[in-house]
Amino acid sequence: MSEIRKHYFLDEYCIIAPGRSKRPSVFKEEKKEGFSERCVFCAGEEDKTPLATAVYKDGMILKDEEGSRITGWDVRCIPNLYPALSPAAVGVSSEFDVSPGFGYHEVIVETPSHEKVIPDLSDTDMSLLMKVYRDRVVHYEGQDKIEYVSLFKNWGEKAGASLAHTHSQLIALPMRPPLLAEEMKMIGSLQKCPYCDLIEKESKSERLLYENEHFIVITPYCSKVPYEMWILPRMHVHHISGFDDEQLDSLGRAIHSALSGLWEYIGEIPYNYMFYQLRDEPGYHFNLKVQPVTSKAAGFEKNTGVYINTMPPETAAKYLQGIFEDNSE
Amino acid sequence: MSEIRKHYFLDEYCIIAPGRSKRPSVFKEEKKEGFSERCVFCAGEEDKTPLATAVYKDGMILKDEEGSRITGWDVRCIPNLYPALSPAAVGVSSEFDVSPGFGYHEVIVETPSHEKVIPDLSDTDMSLLMKVYRDRVVHYEGQDKIEYVSLFKNWGEKAGASLAHTHSQLIALPMRPPLLAEEMKMIGSLQKCPYCDLIEKESKSERLLYENEHFIVITPYCSKVPYEMWILPRMHVHHISGFDDEQLDSLGRAIHSALSGLWEYIGEIPYNYMFYQLRDEPGYHFNLKVQPVTSKAAGFEKNTGVYINTMPPETAAKYLQGIFEDNSE
Repeated sequence: MSEIRKHYFLDEYCIIAPGRSKRPSVFKEEKKEGFSERCVFCAGEEDKTPLATAVYKDGMILKDEEGSRITGWDVRCIPNLYPALSPAAVGVSSEFDVSPGFGYHEVIVETPSHEKVIPDLSDTDMSLLMKVYRDRVVHYEGQDKIEYVSLFKNWGEKAGASLAHTHSQLIALPMRPPLLAEEMKMIGSLQKCPYCDLIEKESKSERLLYENEHFIVITPYCSKVPYEMWILPRMHVHHISGFDDEQLDSLGRAIHSALSGLWEYIGEIPYNYMFYQLRDEPGYHFNLKVQPVTSKAAGFEKNTGVYINTMPPETAAKYLQGIFEDNSE
Repeated sequence: MSEIRKHYFLDEYCIIAPGRSKRPSVFKEEKKEGFSERCVFCAGEEDKTPLATAVYKDGMILKDEEGSRITGWDVRCIPNLYPALSPAAVGVSSEFDVSPGFGYHEVIVETPSHEKVIPDLSDTDMSLLMKVYRDRVVHYEGQDKIEYVSLFKNWGEKAGASLAHTHSQLIALPMRPPLLAEEMKMIGSLQKCPYCDLIEKESKSERLLYENEHFIVITPYCSKVPYEMWILPRMHVHHISGFDDEQLDSLGRAIHSALSGLWEYIGEIPYNYMFYQLRDEPGYHFNLKVQPVTSKAAGFEKNTGVYINTMPPETAAKYLQGIFEDNSE
């Protein structure tokens, strides 16, 4: 029997319809041929990409220069070869509302190895990656006319990744995007932070998957997709720049645990994760959402904005909790 | 060079980024094995589905009865075997906001033939289908506690269809869905109907694809996906029940022309189409959106609500206009 669930505090709804559920095995991404081959993100192929804007190597932050690319790196940040937005955008006009496609689009190559995925990374690797995330977000938010930096990861072809080599992306926008603007408007109208409230409740609920000193991982009550996970700081911090190094380490462990647990249970399914944060809004509460790609937003979702989810988050949590417990520190 | 375009009147945005474009051939859906086999929606398999709630046959509207299923039908409406919502939903409770999954979920089998698709249907077939749409929407909106009827079509596996036999679906909800509620709020705040306004402008624009007495088809200025098409009545009508039979015939021809033209140009790509209408809001303007499925909403879209579209609607229109002209009556 299905339920219509409302988001914790937004006017968003999902229909939890377990009768329509598929077995997890149906979800598995088939490994593409060529997965284990080399690509332009690999160590040794540095000259096949645009010049790196930031190269993390042995504790240093370096930059490529024309004619001399840095090798032996740990994490490498490069402009997207097919950018959605560009700092060189020029004026456009129309009888409708339009602005130049101004902005930045960067790829963060998380490891020089083509074979590794997030669950293969060590605590040290994850800590470095979190610092790279913080650095790059802060860097682009400091650029003229940038209002928001979208930081996200697409893993797997079905999740929108066009290359198999594990990487994250960052798109810096000259506007606050509608989703965040809407959410902040709602939060601004409330007496207290709704995230602090839900964190308190979900920390004691059947939907809690994992916790460390600073972060919790839950399957949210109003999950849009099967095995959705939210990673939330216990403390009220509105932006990644508000985390100290120890908290960043905790964030890295929470992400690593969430993805490792998910894949251990269900196999290497494609997923997206997205950072939600607002630099200039102390009332916002940093959060990271992991959405495995197991189904399609089809006509109904596009018509209504309501998501049909065949996997109750409580059931997903029950499946995953055993694995998280075995893996816990 | 890309552009950031705003929706005609909503706070929605898309990034038109033609540099990232793929050739149309990349989009084609591969025909699944078993496509030409029989299924439970086929003529002769009537006893393999729940009892039909409405069967259109030779100008009559009939109903299945236990032990005697109607054969020789033109269009057949049956309850979804795995309903997202059900009239038998029972009470649920939680510390969060939840309501029973009350509602109706129906499948409209558009033709008894497993091989036919919308472009194969005749004007007469399309006229009947439009009447079925109108009847079924009105029927479910008349049920107790139903606030909105979502009418949509998923064609192709990538568009979320689980069966190849062409069909539409209808989900009757006990609430006005957030997308429509938001849009109506915006429309209510405006002096005049923004659809009437955009129809006037786009009827003379390079994005006009097709027109008949009562409807136009355009590629909208702020297209979220490549080859998106909107089908719009010239006259201000807020709901399908407001169309007379002649107008319904025109709607059928507009849908048929849009899909035939799209497939003739690009091949049999998967698509969704969705009806947007509000029974009790004379200020709303009926519209139907066709969204081919050629790309994925990935991390960026999920983070921001902003869509990256690699195909400018003007370019899509230029490609399609030739075909529409050749096919025009």
